Formats: sequence, C-alpha cells, structure tokens
Amino acid sequence: MRLPIVLIGAGRIGRIHGTNASADNRIELRYIVDPVADAAAGLSAMTGAKPVSLDEALDDKEVAGAVIASATKTHADLIERITSLGVPIFCEKPLDLSTSRARDCVDAVTKKNIPFVIGFNRRYDPDFARLHALARDGALGNVESVQIVSRDPSPPSLDYIRASGGLFRDMAIHDFDVARWLLGEEPDEVSASGSSIADPAIGEAGDIDTALITLRTPSGRLCSISNSRRTSYGYDQRVEVHGSLRTARVENHPETWLLVSGDEGRTRSGIKHFFHDRYAEAYRLEMRHFVSVIMGSETPRTTVRDGLRALELADAAAQSLKEKRTVQVQTAP
Amino acid sequence: MRLPIVLIGAGRIGRIHGTNASADNRIELRYIVDPVADAAAGLSAMTGAKPVSLDEALDDKEVAGAVIASATKTHADLIERITSLGVPIFCEKPLDLSTSRARDCVDAVTKKNIPFVIGFNRRYDPDFARLHALARDGALGNVESVQIVSRDPSPPSLDYIRASGGLFRDMAIHDFDVARWLLGEEPDEVSASGSSIADPAIGEAGDIDTALITLRTPSGRLCSISNSRRTSYGYDQRVEVHGSLRTARVENHPETWLLVSGDEGRTRSGIKHFFHDRYAEAYRLEMRHFVSVIMGSETPRTTVRDGLRALELADAAAQSLKEKRTVQVQTAP
Amino acid sequence: MRLPIVLIGAGRIGRIHGTNASADNRIELRYIVDPVADAAAGLSAMTGAKPVSLDEALDDKEVAGAVIASATKTHADLIERITSLGVPIFCEKPLDLSTSRARDCVDAVTKKNIPFVIGFNRRYDPDFARLHALARDGALGNVESVQIVSRDPSPPSLDYIRASGGLFRDMAIHDFDVARWLLGEEPDEVSASGSSIADPAIGEAGDIDTALITLRTPSGRLCSISNSRRTSYGYDQRVEVHGSLRTARVENHPETWLLVSGDEGRTRSGIKHFFHDRYAEAYRLEMRHFVSVIMGSETPRTTVRDGLRALELADAAAQSLKEKRTVQVQTAP
Amino acid sequence: MRLPIVLIGAGRIGRIHGTNASADNRIELRYIVDPVADAAAGLSAMTGAKPVSLDEALDDKEVAGAVIASATKTHADLIERITSLGVPIFCEKPLDLSTSRARDCVDAVTKKNIPFVIGFNRRYDPDFARLHALARDGALGNVESVQIVSRDPSPPSLDYIRASGGLFRDMAIHDFDVARWLLGEEPDEVSASGSSIADPAIGEAGDIDTALITLRTPSGRLCSISNSRRTSYGYDQRVEVHGSLRTARVENHPETWLLVSGDEGRTRSGIKHFFHDRYAEAYRLEMRHFVSVIMGSETPRTTVRDGLRALELADAAAQSLKEKRTVQVQTAP
Repeated sequence: MRLPIVLIGAGRIGRIHGTNASADNRIELRYIVDPVADAAAGLSAMTGAKPVSLDEALDDKEVAGAVIASATKTHADLIERITSLGVPIFCEKPLDLSTSRARDCVDAVTKKNIPFVIGFNRRYDPDFARLHALARDGALGNVESVQIVSRDPSPPSLDYIRASGGLFRDMAIHDFDVARWLLGEEPDEVSASGSSIADPAIGEAGDIDTALITLRTPSGRLCSISNSRRTSYGYDQRVEVHGSLRTARVENHPETWLLVSGDEGRTRSGIKHFFHDRYAEAYRLEMRHFVSVIMGSETPRTTVRDGLRALELADAAAQSLKEKRTVQVQTAP
Repeated sequence: MRLPIVLIGAGRIGRIHGTNASADNRIELRYIVDPVADAAAGLSAMTGAKPVSLDEALDDKEVAGAVIASATKTHADLIERITSLGVPIFCEKPLDLSTSRARDCVDAVTKKNIPFVIGFNRRYDPDFARLHALARDGALGNVESVQIVSRDPSPPSLDYIRASGGLFRDMAIHDFDVARWLLGEEPDEVSASGSSIADPAIGEAGDIDTALITLRTPSGRLCSISNSRRTSYGYDQRVEVHGSLRTARVENHPETWLLVSGDEGRTRSGIKHFFHDRYAEAYRLEMRHFVSVIMGSETPRTTVRDGLRALELADAAAQSLKEKRTVQVQTAP
Repeated sequence: MRLPIVLIGAGRIGRIHGTNASADNRIELRYIVDPVADAAAGLSAMTGAKPVSLDEALDDKEVAGAVIASATKTHADLIERITSLGVPIFCEKPLDLSTSRARDCVDAVTKKNIPFVIGFNRRYDPDFARLHALARDGALGNVESVQIVSRDPSPPSLDYIRASGGLFRDMAIHDFDVARWLLGEEPDEVSASGSSIADPAIGEAGDIDTALITLRTPSGRLCSISNSRRTSYGYDQRVEVHGSLRTARVENHPETWLLVSGDEGRTRSGIKHFFHDRYAEAYRLEMRHFVSVIMGSETPRTTVRDGLRALELADAAAQSLKEKRTVQVQTAP
Repeated sequence: MRLPIVLIGAGRIGRIHGTNASADNRIELRYIVDPVADAAAGLSAMTGAKPVSLDEALDDKEVAGAVIASATKTHADLIERITSLGVPIFCEKPLDLSTSRARDCVDAVTKKNIPFVIGFNRRYDPDFARLHALARDGALGNVESVQIVSRDPSPPSLDYIRASGGLFRDMAIHDFDVARWLLGEEPDEVSASGSSIADPAIGEAGDIDTALITLRTPSGRLCSISNSRRTSYGYDQRVEVHGSLRTARVENHPETWLLVSGDEGRTRSGIKHFFHDRYAEAYRLEMRHFVSVIMGSETPRTTVRDGLRALELADAAAQSLKEKRTVQVQTAP
C-alpha cells in the first residue's frame, strides 16, 4: 500500500511539495488542507488528492506523514498537534518567527521522537551536496572560509515583508543553515549590516532589503553572507568554500547554453529566474528524502534542531544590526 | 477521452518514448508491442500500457496514433501498414537504410496525407530551437556557414555497427537534418572523409568511426560535420552558425555547476554523458509535438520528407567517401 | 629633453617601477637610491640609471620627479623632504602606518601644492577602470553594493608580517581604496572579523591572515571585503558591483587559454600567480600617469588624501576587530 | 657586441618584427630596407636603425642575420641572394606563391646549410605550444582528429586579394602548418570546398572568402580547417585536438575580464581583434627564437621545408576546390 500523506497549505510552496509528493509512487497524497477553497481545488485537480479540513485529514488514522506548507504563523501549532498524534512531519522553513516557539517545537518533536524534516532545500540541491561532500571528505583541506551570495530577483509585496519576520528570518535563514553545514562548526559570533537601498518602502516597513552578514566559528573559520531582495539579472545563488588545499564553488545555473557573439560582445542567456526553477531538483529530492524518512530507510538530513539553530543566528543578526556590534551565540544546544 | 496510442518497440529508445507518452495526459498509452516479452512487460509496468501483438493493437479501431521505435529494418513495412489504416505515425529515424524504401514511405504517407513525425530530436531541443530562431529571424544576418560537432562517448557493439547502415546513415543522419534546418537552403554538394582510427574493429566490420563531412549549398553556404564514435569526455554536441552579423552557438551541457580550483588548475565537471540525458527535454517535447499533431493543433515540424532527405545526404556522403570526390545532390524533391 | 627622475628603493616593487619608468621615453630614469648596493647595482644594469646616495640625487636641481618605493617607515620623512624641494612625488602605498604621520604628509603636500600620486595600482588596471566607468556613467544604475575578493597566494615572511602594520594597513588598504572608488560615496561605518586560521604563526605574531570587512555608506551602500594571505590556486582578485540595473564584475585572469577535457572533467589553467603578473599593465599605466602628471597633462587620479583615507578605514577595521563592534568613521576630510 | 641585423620591409608586419628585434638586447637592428622612404623613416625613428638600400645593408660584412618582411613576390630572390652570402634568414610566410620557386629556396638554403626560420607565428604562441606539448607527450593519447577554426575579422582590400595567391596560399597556409604540426603525421589527402558568400567582389576577383578544408593522414587522422575572411566578432582563432584519452583546445583570447549581467543576459567583451594583438607574444617569441638560432643556441623550429610543405598543401586544396575531388599529396620530401 502507498502510504497516505496529508499536505497542509496549497499556496506557491505547497504546490511544489504537492506535485513532487504525488509523483513519488511510494506514497499517496491523500489530502490537501487549505482554507482557500480555490487553492485546494486547483492542487487537487493536479494531484488527485482530496481537499478536506484539517480535522478530517487528521482523523484518518492511516495518515503516515504530514507536509506543512502553510503560513509561518501556523507552523508551531501544527507541529505540536501533529507531533502529539505521532505522525512524521515535513515542515517548510522557518519553524516559527519566535525562537521561543521554535524551542517548543524542538522539545515536542524530541520528546515524542517524531521523524521530522525541515525544508532547508539547499542541502538537497545536487551541486550543493557535492560541494558539501568535497568539504567533508578532505578534498579541500581544512575549511577556512565560506562565501555565500544569495539574492532574490525582485522584492515580494510589502504585505509579505511585514509578515515575514524580516530579511534575516525569512530569507537569510537558508543561508545561515548552509553556512553551518559547510563550515562544519557552529558559529559563535555574528555581525550584520544592512540597508533598504533597493526599495525605500521596505525600509519604511521596518525591514532591510540588502544585507551583509559575517559569521565566525571558535576555530576562526569565517563566513560572509550577501543578501539582496533585488537582483537585476535573476536569482543569484552562489556559494564558495575556501580550503587550505582547494577552493570549490557552485555557480549560477543559466537558462540556456546559447552564446551569441557580435560587435556587442559575447552574450549568454540569463540565469534561472527564481527558486522554483533553480531548486526544482532540490525540492524533488527533499520530498523523496522525507518519504524515505517516513519509511525508515533514511534519517532526517535537516532536523528540527537545524531549524532552531538557523533562527537563533537570524536573531543574532537582527540584534547585531540594531546594536551595531558583534553578537555572541551559544554553540552548544 | 484520452487518445489511445500504441508504441511499437520497447527497447532503449522505446522506453524513452513510452515514458514521455505516458506522462502526457492528453493521451493514453494503451498498447506496447515488442516480440521480446520481458522488454514489453518491463515498460508495461512503468506505464500501465498493455503488452499485445501488433495485430491485436491495430485491430483496436480507437487507436489514434502509433509510435514506431522498433528495429530500423521494420520501419518501412510498419509505416506502409499503419499508413494504410489512416493512423498518424511517429517514427524514429531513419525511415529505412535504403533510400528506395524510404521513398516508398514518403509516397505512402503523402498519398494518404497521414500526419507523420520523424524523430529528429535535435530540432526539439530548446537550445537548438533558439539557435534556429536566431538564424531564421535575421538576428545573425545572412547565414554563411554552420559547424556541427557530434560525437558519441563510446562505440556501440560490433553487432549494432553491422546492422546500422554505417556511420553516415545511423549517426550523421541527425546532423544532416540539423545542417539542412540551420542552413535554410538545401545542400547540393557533399564530400566526406573518414577512418576507423578510434577502433580498428569497426574498420574490419566495414564501417568508419571518425568522419568529416562538408556540405555546400547553391548560394555558397558551407557546413562542416565532425563525427566520432568515441569521445574521451562524454557526448560532444556543439553547433555554431556564423552569420554576416553575428555568430551563435550551442555548447555542451555540463553535469554540474561545480568549479574546483587548486594547484592542478580550475576543473569543472564533465558534460552530459549520452543522448538520453543530453536530449531528455528534446524527447519530451518531440512526443508532446506528436500528440499535438494527432490532435490537429500543430503540423509536423520534422516530416517524412525530412527523413528521406537526410538519408539522401547520407548516401551521398558514403559515395563521396568511396569515390574520393564531391558528390552532387538534387535539391528539388 | 627627457625629464630626469629619481627612484628611491630598488627592491621588489622598486624594480617594477624602475623598469616601467625607464621604458617611458618622456623621462630619463637618472638615479637609483638604495642603501643595499647590490639591489641598486642590479636595477642600474637593467635601466642605465646611476646608483647614488639620496643627497646626491636631490642635489641635482634638474630632477623633475621622485618615485618612492622604499620601506614604508621611510615614506613620511621622504615625502616631507622632497615636498620641501617642490619635486613631484609618486609614492607606493601606504603613506605611513600611522594616520597621524599620514596627515602630516597630506598637510605638507597640500600646503606646497605638490603633484602627488599614491600607488593604488588597482585603479590603473584596465578592467577595474572599465568597471568604474560603468558604475560612474550610469550603466549599472544606482550602485547598491560592492563585493571585493582579494586574496594572496601565500603568506609573506613573519618578518614582513611584523613590520607590515597588520593585514588591514598592509594588504586590505588596496581594497579600502577600491571600495571608496567604486562605492562613489565615503563609508561611515566599518566592521571587521578575522582569524589566523591559515597560519597560526601569523596569529602568534599578533596579526590575522583571513578577514571579512563590511563597509556601509550614509545612503546605505554596502561593501564586503574578503581577504586572505593564502589561496590554494593563485592570486584571487575579483570585484563585483551590484547596481539597480546591472551587475558588473572583473574576474580572475587565467594563465593560459587551454582547456583539457577527459574523464577527470574539464580543466583550465590556474590564474595569474601574484601581483607582478596580474597587475603588470596597471603598474605600467600608473607610472605613465605619474609622468603625465609631472608634465602637467593629467591631474593625479590617486591622491595623497586617498592614501590617508584608506589608512583611516584600515584603522577603523583594526579597532572594530579588537572591540567587536561597528566603528563610525568621519566622511568629511 | 650585439649582432647586427637587417630588416627588409617596413610595412605592417615589418614594424612588428622591427620592434621586437630592437627590444632584444642580444642584437642590434642596424639597417632597415624599404623602397617606401616614409615607412623606412618611421620605423627608423622607433628603433634607431638606419634606413639604407639593400646593397648598402648587404655590403656590411658584419651583418649576422636578415629578416625578410617585404612583399611576397620578393621573397625567393632575397632568399637566394642572402643565402649566397651565408647570412641566416628569418622570412615571413609564404616562401613564394609558386611551389617551384619555393623548392628553389629549399634547395638554396639546404645546399648552403643556412640557418633559416620561416614565420609561422602560431607555433610560437604559448597556448599553441602547450597544446602541441600535450599532443606530443602522450597526455591526450593517440591523436585522432584536429579541428582548426581560423577566421579573420574583415576582408583585406581587393588589391591585396589579387596579389595574395588566394585564400589557401595566403591565409590557410598558417593552418596547414598548424595541422601538420599537431597531427604529428604528414597528410596525404586534401579536399576543399569554398565560396565567396561574405563578399561577392572577392569572388569576382577570382578568390573565395569562406572555405572548409579536410586533411587525412595515412594512419587515418583527420583534420578540418574552417576559414573565413570575415567574422562578426573579431579574430576567431581556435584549435582543438581530439585524442584517445583527452581533448585539448585553445580558445579565443578576450579583450577584457569584465562580465556585465542584466536583463539582456550576461555579456563579456569581444575577443582580440586581429593578428597583431592576438599573436603579439608569438611574434615576440619567434624573433627571440631567430636570434637564438643566429647565436647557435637553438635550431630552427619552423624550417624552410615547413614553408614548402604548407604551400604544397595549399596547392592541393586549390586543385581540390577546382576539380571537386580529393587530391593525393606526397608525404615524403
């Protein structure tokens, strides 16, 4: 029997997870839960899953896994409720905008020992995974520094900005996780600078749109993160790891392999435009991983603790930006 | 209702077409015909189609299309039989190894006015299609020359070689079609040189493994085709078009976006290894096109005449290789 | 008549300037001053200039310009003495390790209105100059951030480290200048992090070998500088400017244009190994500029104030590293 | 004493050789011979050499070498005269437009055993030399095919075309030499196709402007040469060698290292515009080589026989173009 799964949230990210889940023939995407009836119906048409209420879905005792892709503010409550039922969870980042609530989630998941995967998609991208393998297997020598460039093509709506928890918790949170993963050591110092130079309205909404973050680990490894909500040429996603023996980097993925040469120079296509095409394969592999976790053949590669840790670094960055100083972070759980 | 389709041939290429056909929800892949029971059963398991005999499949009067992916020697007979039933056909290249039989196919298809798509996959590759659009819309100016590099990673078995009709009819036939398409004018002169330097056993089997072919059109456009059955670093597929205003080229597709730098230089991954991964998207789009042709919303982009014309150029190349002279080709049908 | 010039310092950098000066047929490199007789003699043999004492050189009232390429600790005294003679000066960076002495230099040069060029070679590099032109002429739109990677291939001797004034004043000083130039606005906030992870002996000598520096300007432009004394694959010199319309970057210069492809991937040569080959053309153009300044046909592109300003940013970075906080810098002179 | 040298011809190519010779401090460029007084005077001003008549130059018994950079039609007579004086010769390509006269030159040089270097500049280009070394030292495995793209940016004047001996003898002659050098085996079959599609006036002048040439060696190695007198984006000079183990290629040299990304894609600068900048280093090294040959420390890397052999291949290509057949060539001298 295919394992029945419920998807909570049928918005932009829910559709990605729903489509990938329905293509994995080890499971059955049985239910879709979304208060917006049209969204639920649309995704139902694409996947064959049944739009139901949350209660209805969770009343089905056969449900073997839940994918949480709803609004951030609902995550913690959902995690606690579904954890109490003993059902494995995949949850989109972030756990919550509050580290306190995020700690509640870690406690709940840990106490019940529920299989839990947080949706840090970068770790499932094949190129990022190869980069991590090079760093871990010694091919690069001792890791000395990591450089992350992570820039969106264009800012989200101001409504989104206002509910987002700010650039550090909403956008850089992926990069905090990548940094921890590639550094191979927990950062204990965070400093950040930022501005709203790309779109002053973002500044008026109390957020920044451009940021530079510096992390330092106890052994002296350094990491720079460069974020922007706006990039003229697409979704700029580059990471490089400088080791004592070699440097490795993942470059942007172009849209085509065409090169046109003339008086004006030699022009290539732009790069992949946004996360859904740049990380399409990563989303697919992350959902496959969750199914494997449900089935017991793999253990979570991105844990609930990873979700909390990235949030703590985001908090530290926000504090550093405000207080104009380096903020110390605990490295032990 | 989904249109029922029959797939003839469940080998390497049949599996590609079968998988793509079964993913197109406008059709139903209803039957698979292959005398090798295991092959038919395997693909049946993947697609849900029913393994049947050819007679059984063709007796179903609902069948709206046939995909021919069986051995080359069966193509012409199948085309004639299915054409007589009035069923639209997708046929893998080549039509036949004999131009005479290929002309029979053209006659049959033309007389009955059957929708017919020949499987010249390059034309459906998004990058090749963009290159063609640049050449056709004037962005490159007048097309002056075309350069095609088309090299396989490693030679097929000698059994395959012996039944293949030779490098020109089996492998270069794709490139003859690409040349005609990009030149925008029928070549009227063909010359070819070749050797079996990569694998002498291929020479002993009466074929060559490395070739250079030159085409010339009446207005003086030139095209070079460089083929090899063996390439040390993968499936080398590059095309460039030199126009009076600009040059455009399609480059090889790399396997990853990782760059590793050290004492040894700066190393990138290899390129896509063979046709099934390099042209995966082209195969998908070519099957979608066939379905659209069946449904009447598109007209064939690669016609039965294209299949014949490429074969005539292959014949001319074989004659040029043998007689060590430039061979004239008719440009009118 | 060719204008007579004196070169003070015949070490590594002195030889570069001496060779370039002797190839400019608008001037005559008349004197070389270096207490190390062998160094002076060697460069004399290459250029035809006469090795003399400083007094002897400055007693020649025809001397039309002085190139200071001696040890950093001698710069300020030389600048004051030569300025008092009214002779135009080219001085290698930095002016001095102390901002107080550097201010003395600015005062002396300003009061006497002496033509003075500081050796910030990056600004004379053709690629950097094109990047700056793009930023200034509006092709990039509003400059939002600048990213500088500036990494040496291998650490200098510990003796050099100890006399260097530290990574910020010795190495990053070039990058502070590039940052100011490309940002187009004076930074008013500096923060820095660092470690001696590449070579612990550098840490024992009281310095760092790896650093991340963040600059911010009043309008919110951000700049990251990544420095290291050790890079596994050569002299890593990359700069990118993100504007509201476009991003432009200068990439590393490879040693060759060879690409070798095989089982192991696709490998290119390493990059230029160190400053003398990467910036050879910049050094040539900077010396030509100085000669043009002497002749009155150009005004200094890198001024004594630029020399002071970069040093103030270096001081701020050192203070930030020590105090773990963002340091405010005056933007007015 | 510096060895006195005479330069014959102060035109475009003469200025390159004259400048390089005068920068080599092992020799003295003593005389310049050119019937165009202005040309001689101009180069004299740059190099300090004395403009004299040919007789005057050759009367100086100290002359240790002659550089022939005059019009092609004067080469053979000059070679015979200077050879009879026992003076080492550097001669620009081609020896002569007639293979018969070229054979006279080989005979004269051989009989008197005169050190003689023909100006096939590609062999002195550092990247081409590295490519050759890879092919020779086994890193590529057995050489199977060579692909040469050699395209000029824009056609010369029709007067030049008429006196040039045709594209094969004037332009492709470099590529015939490169082909022989990289194939490591003498070609014995030549076929060629061509047209005057870029500029019909070249066709009216009896020449072609676009050509494809195929060479084959006795062991089955193949070489394609693609030539054009016009390229929209600069001086297109690419060579690749396919071996049984690896493929290596030399790519075009860009003018800058700037990359500009925006809505329009990712644009790099154009490539080096023509031979004087693309092969500047090759010209320098080839003149250094000639001086070393004069001094006896090196033996000619490009011999008078190489000059003849390339001409024979050019003749065969012209014959193939005319007779539309593969032309056999002797491989033994």
